[in-house]
Amino acid sequence: MTRVRVESFSISLDGYGAGPQQSLEQPLGMGGPALHEWALPTRTFQKAVFGKEGGSTGIDEDFAARGFRNIGAWIMGRNMFGPVRGPWPDLDWTGWWGEEPPYHVNVFVLTHHARPPLAMKGGTVFHFVTGGIHEALARAREAAAGRDIRIGGGASTIRQYLDAGLIDELHIAIAPVLLGSGERLFDNTADLRARGYQCVQFAASDKAAHVVLQRQR
Amino acid sequence: MTRVRVESFSISLDGYGAGPQQSLEQPLGMGGPALHEWALPTRTFQKAVFGKEGGSTGIDEDFAARGFRNIGAWIMGRNMFGPVRGPWPDLDWTGWWGEEPPYHVNVFVLTHHARPPLAMKGGTVFHFVTGGIHEALARAREAAAGRDIRIGGGASTIRQYLDAGLIDELHIAIAPVLLGSGERLFDNTADLRARGYQCVQFAASDKAAHVVLQRQR
Repeated sequence: MTRVRVESFSISLDGYGAGPQQSLEQPLGMGGPALHEWALPTRTFQKAVFGKEGGSTGIDEDFAARGFRNIGAWIMGRNMFGPVRGPWPDLDWTGWWGEEPPYHVNVFVLTHHARPPLAMKGGTVFHFVTGGIHEALARAREAAAGRDIRIGGGASTIRQYLDAGLIDELHIAIAPVLLGSGERLFDNTADLRARGYQCVQFAASDKAAHVVLQRQR
Repeated sequence: MTRVRVESFSISLDGYGAGPQQSLEQPLGMGGPALHEWALPTRTFQKAVFGKEGGSTGIDEDFAARGFRNIGAWIMGRNMFGPVRGPWPDLDWTGWWGEEPPYHVNVFVLTHHARPPLAMKGGTVFHFVTGGIHEALARAREAAAGRDIRIGGGASTIRQYLDAGLIDELHIAIAPVLLGSGERLFDNTADLRARGYQCVQFAASDKAAHVVLQRQR
């Protein structure tokens, strides 16, 4: 059965999932890269993002790796796809990841602005969904064909799916940094305990504390 | 030089420093005890709270122990002293801790309701300060005589001192639980990064992730 998962979502000590002032130069916002220091050196990320062999093993790698396991489709917010806001001026922007993005499956991008699907090298196809989170999930579920769906960032995309009661499991990495402002995952309105989530796993490296929250049925 | 420190302050994954519905039966609020699971078995807490020898050693104990090192005075909010709200009906309530509280120094309790000082066994003297956080700090500084001042809870007391720029260092323990509601330490208004704090230490046991935030001068 398909499960809907958030994986490798990094937040700061003060609860922010991305730094302020996101831009082309700073896709993760000011201070954002510090959130991902645990992930970058891992074998999984070195391979996925840079196409390199090697990289670190251990707790951080274990959590990075699980994020790509049994994923049949992705859903992401438009800001995770790129820095363009408003209507697409043209079709030149094809994502942050170069010609071979690390997804290798169908990726459904939430946007208010229609655009034809975009097939990339390595099997990634970006679909631009204007009908909202439920439409994106239905299409991702069909594409996943029994495998799981991973919900990428940003925090607001995850919050929308949480608010709709549609997420089964979240892996969150708490990085030992303060960001001060940005997008919060644990908003005051998102009471995960009341929604039935419990922390089922907790482990830390020297770069991050990893938790897995699971919805109890 | 006297430093003003927050120590062993536990928060949940969703950022709450105490559970909701604090009462005589549940001093830490609903779900609050789960925040402190890391601390309770430690040698320091077993000795301080139960007067027992023995207890766990390791990372949790290291952080519990540092919280009592070189402390010359404490400041705490009234809810940390007891469950009584409004004017004191009588002087019967003498704290949560029995006849020998674990402080052994002068403790300044912030309250709107005057009450004579209360001397307990083992050297703890509770002083009830009605003049606000600055008066409490001035009196604690004098009492500490060069040693440090520890700011106890709750979250609102700590936030008041943070907002006033008066805290030098915070040790926070993040417990792998969700509380859903309660008192937040990292309120939306408390931008610690902008206030000059940085995470200078990070270490985790299997029960909590410990961070030390220090204000850079």
